[in-house]
Amino acid sequence: MNMIQERLCRLRAEMKKRKMDLYVVPTADFHESEYVGEHFKARQFLTGFTGSAGTAVITQEEAGLWTDGRYFVQAEGQLAGSTITLYRIGEEGVPTIEDFIKEKLPQNGCLGFDGRVVNANWGKKLAQFAKEKEAGLYVTEDLVDFIWTDRPPISKKPAFLLDEKYTGKSCADKLAALRDELQKEKADVHILTSLYDIAWLLNVRGGDISHVPVVLSYLVLTERECIWFVQEEAVSDEMLKALGENGISVKPYDAIYEYVAGLPRDSHVLMDCGIVNYRIADSLDKGILILDKPNPTEQMKAVKNEIELANTKIAHIKDGVAFTKFMYWLKTNIGSLPMTEMSASDYLEERRREQEHFLDLSFETISAYGANAAMMHYSATPQSDAMLKPEGLLLVDSGGHYLEGTTDITRTIALGPITDEMRLHFTTVCRCNLNLANAKFLQGCTGQNLDILARGPLWSMGIDYKCGTGHGVGHVLNVHEGPNGFRWRIVPERRDSAALKEGMITTDEPGVYLEGRYGIRIENELVCRLAEKNEYGQFMEFENITYAPIDLDAIDPQELSGREKKMLNEYHAKVYETISPYLDEKEKDWLKQYTRAIECV
Amino acid sequence: MNMIQERLCRLRAEMKKRKMDLYVVPTADFHESEYVGEHFKARQFLTGFTGSAGTAVITQEEAGLWTDGRYFVQAEGQLAGSTITLYRIGEEGVPTIEDFIKEKLPQNGCLGFDGRVVNANWGKKLAQFAKEKEAGLYVTEDLVDFIWTDRPPISKKPAFLLDEKYTGKSCADKLAALRDELQKEKADVHILTSLYDIAWLLNVRGGDISHVPVVLSYLVLTERECIWFVQEEAVSDEMLKALGENGISVKPYDAIYEYVAGLPRDSHVLMDCGIVNYRIADSLDKGILILDKPNPTEQMKAVKNEIELANTKIAHIKDGVAFTKFMYWLKTNIGSLPMTEMSASDYLEERRREQEHFLDLSFETISAYGANAAMMHYSATPQSDAMLKPEGLLLVDSGGHYLEGTTDITRTIALGPITDEMRLHFTTVCRCNLNLANAKFLQGCTGQNLDILARGPLWSMGIDYKCGTGHGVGHVLNVHEGPNGFRWRIVPERRDSAALKEGMITTDEPGVYLEGRYGIRIENELVCRLAEKNEYGQFMEFENITYAPIDLDAIDPQELSGREKKMLNEYHAKVYETISPYLDEKEKDWLKQYTRAIECV
Repeated sequence: MNMIQERLCRLRAEMKKRKMDLYVVPTADFHESEYVGEHFKARQFLTGFTGSAGTAVITQEEAGLWTDGRYFVQAEGQLAGSTITLYRIGEEGVPTIEDFIKEKLPQNGCLGFDGRVVNANWGKKLAQFAKEKEAGLYVTEDLVDFIWTDRPPISKKPAFLLDEKYTGKSCADKLAALRDELQKEKADVHILTSLYDIAWLLNVRGGDISHVPVVLSYLVLTERECIWFVQEEAVSDEMLKALGENGISVKPYDAIYEYVAGLPRDSHVLMDCGIVNYRIADSLDKGILILDKPNPTEQMKAVKNEIELANTKIAHIKDGVAFTKFMYWLKTNIGSLPMTEMSASDYLEERRREQEHFLDLSFETISAYGANAAMMHYSATPQSDAMLKPEGLLLVDSGGHYLEGTTDITRTIALGPITDEMRLHFTTVCRCNLNLANAKFLQGCTGQNLDILARGPLWSMGIDYKCGTGHGVGHVLNVHEGPNGFRWRIVPERRDSAALKEGMITTDEPGVYLEGRYGIRIENELVCRLAEKNEYGQFMEFENITYAPIDLDAIDPQELSGREKKMLNEYHAKVYETISPYLDEKEKDWLKQYTRAIECV
Repeated sequence: MNMIQERLCRLRAEMKKRKMDLYVVPTADFHESEYVGEHFKARQFLTGFTGSAGTAVITQEEAGLWTDGRYFVQAEGQLAGSTITLYRIGEEGVPTIEDFIKEKLPQNGCLGFDGRVVNANWGKKLAQFAKEKEAGLYVTEDLVDFIWTDRPPISKKPAFLLDEKYTGKSCADKLAALRDELQKEKADVHILTSLYDIAWLLNVRGGDISHVPVVLSYLVLTERECIWFVQEEAVSDEMLKALGENGISVKPYDAIYEYVAGLPRDSHVLMDCGIVNYRIADSLDKGILILDKPNPTEQMKAVKNEIELANTKIAHIKDGVAFTKFMYWLKTNIGSLPMTEMSASDYLEERRREQEHFLDLSFETISAYGANAAMMHYSATPQSDAMLKPEGLLLVDSGGHYLEGTTDITRTIALGPITDEMRLHFTTVCRCNLNLANAKFLQGCTGQNLDILARGPLWSMGIDYKCGTGHGVGHVLNVHEGPNGFRWRIVPERRDSAALKEGMITTDEPGVYLEGRYGIRIENELVCRLAEKNEYGQFMEFENITYAPIDLDAIDPQELSGREKKMLNEYHAKVYETISPYLDEKEKDWLKQYTRAIECV
């Protein structure tokens, strides 16, 4: 019996004690955060699968893990020998997790999960499944806690204030704007549990999730009060004072449950039941009117103000300089210096760290060589760490948090000769990226309208990538942020289908992933901007704020139309103009060569 | 006082008698048909506006007409001097018709409309507005009937059976399939009032709406019965016998209201409340469970079977031959023969009429020269009929019904020299059309996903067209058919946002419309077909079934990419191959020249 089998066995023993038939372990903290702190990696502990998304369901006989297209290859590898069945979400004939639960939960049985790590909507749905089977619902214990003996404690890193010169708006102004929204919605209480939204609202940042500078906390806002439920160790006296000046008081992190249980029954509570956890929702007096709507801060923080945008561009210049230096180093040393996926990403990280105001990587760097790059979210480990050879393609997806903003960039780099097929695919991905970046469209368009601009050239070749084309990006926050995104089919739980608004930042990252062979992705970030307004309406366009060469060594100019060459040349001219002042002469010469114009016929 | 003012005055007198404050006159028959028979043109009679879409609302002080972008220019002209205010739907700052009604209806007032010409959903909404104002609701009279003294009677043209060799499926098979759907939906009664769906289901056609070969009728289906409510004059004894063999009985057209009023209160009635009229819905026992869903026949008839498709292609070949002969005649005689918009469309109609199995035009031909073509749905009248000169652009949008199928084609033709701007716009519209026609995409895509392929090149120039890019096409039925279509923004009442399925036919008709200057539209019909299925899923593509040259005299090859030239050349090669066998030598030579390949660099 391997380690995972043993853990499942011990969990099943805990379930048996409680006469529980099914236990659900999602990938979640108490805040529906996308990435979670070490303490919250119960699903990873239980299954051995390290991807950022996935839900496990355990019965006495079976164990299943549901994950999406980004992780099919990785999960298959990591689950091997675990006795856990991999369920590929969205594939034909694969039962959904809900179908599975409904089928496996016996009549008069018992369904269990930790009510804090399941959002209110899904919790209600699961409760309904239990009700239909006249089964019990057991939601007050985290069973994994009983078997995870060396579990890391809940993080309580020090929080810090992000200056208004970076945020562009004071906490007082944000609170006032939010209170206006509450009034419009006729709500007298707002329960906010999204760590990103709380950080944005209070202009605070922290370090409680790796690569996501948030502070584990809850917040309750009324017309008169603003209570921040946060671990006291995270908050300095100086910060307490600053918060106090904005009328914000502090209570212990765990006190939220008791507090909301005490809310008067005539309250109108605005909260997003897709984010607020089930236990909070369940703690409320049943007489309370719940206004289940997206947190108003979701739109507010997605639409970046001009100061945030100006700062973000500074962050991207720093990041582009770091990446260009890295690319120069790779191209000039491959074959002579020994390199691996990890040593390359270490070199890149060093280049980022030497930039002023660098805070952290914005996510774990993906440095994936050859076939490893076919796994969209591959992360090199000492075991997998591939040697880089002067041939084929290296995919590097990385980003940084700076005081000025957050970045996310992917480049795929030819380390030497590549096949004709790789060149065709690389050139096509480049066309996809440029097509979307150069879109002009009418206000009101969503990512669904635009997605085919990026995906179309690949679809024409009978190729698809099993993920969205792009995601919103937070400002010194989560690198993945809603409500904007590019995706052809609406996936309600992704919450990324909103109309594109001026000031929103979205990534543009089409790709080709051939299992066992190679992976290609080119990712820039696009700021949505107003273009002309005329008798047809308000047009919108994108400003490309990522500055790094797209590897011309891998481009087949014959595959580019005149328009596409022009777009690529204009982009590269901008990269040179923006980045070259920060390079030494050798790097500058190199960049000149790698941003040269392709001849237009 | 002009004629329209006088009619409004007399309507207001009728309203006054009934103490009615607002009277709503939509463009509708009792079946939510898009086009309506002469008897039903109450809104046109009252306002003088002849467009196919628009709703009038009359108060004692005001009169308003709401219409959409297709008709802004036309309505502005036709409403001049009428005292009726034009409300441009969708324009910034224009109140919706519902806002208007809510604002103008006084407390304790009275709102009126004919319950037979308003669908159940909208009727319920209007009834709710009245309730909120504690106002009366007057829905049992058609007030226009009192003032329209020479009103044409309700049409009762003879119905005929469309042979199974054209429909590809017998009425018995269709009834069985529909009953299966009812069983799935747990419905015991189905009320079907869509004239298109009834015609499709019974394999009958008629002539009760100009250019739409339908039979005014209602249908009620149960597990055992199928009752067709139809004017007895329309049905021959032979047809009665054929229907009887399929278990279909006939009752008088008007008997539907009494019949549905008698349905038992424990019935489960499947009906589409967006189509069934308010009076029918209001006649049902309040205890009845209404399953408000799209008619199952909507999907069934949109997905054409292979026999329908093979026939439709035959219809398109005939139509392409007629159009090519017309284009040849235009190009070779312009400047020597006198021509007008109407004489040109007459010539085209003659070419269609001489094709075997021709039944009727599928809609009133749009033959629009110069600035007239800027009006999307312009229809030449003896007053407007413009002389054609050997210069500029003629837009011709036309189509035919043949026993084999229905066609809809638009070509814009240079009658002589055109400006550089016209050439650029024509070439761009051609690019738009080809881009969409050559799309490959994954199953599940809707028109929202694909629309930007056609609209994008124009959006890039800051130009839009204020309508969808394309609509479904009926089979010897309405030339506009749902639930498929190409449109970037979902318009719920258009009901054209369904996923594209194999066998659906959709038009592809981008355009440029410059008010007071010119209009350009190029329209082909596309059959959705399965392409390869692989690890990424089921791909789909289009088969272009419209065969007529796209005027190369108006194309600037420099504006076309290599891919676009290839698409155009492939299309033209197909046109020549398909149409040339039916032409005489002179026409054939001409077509060879007008379908020549543009050189690809």
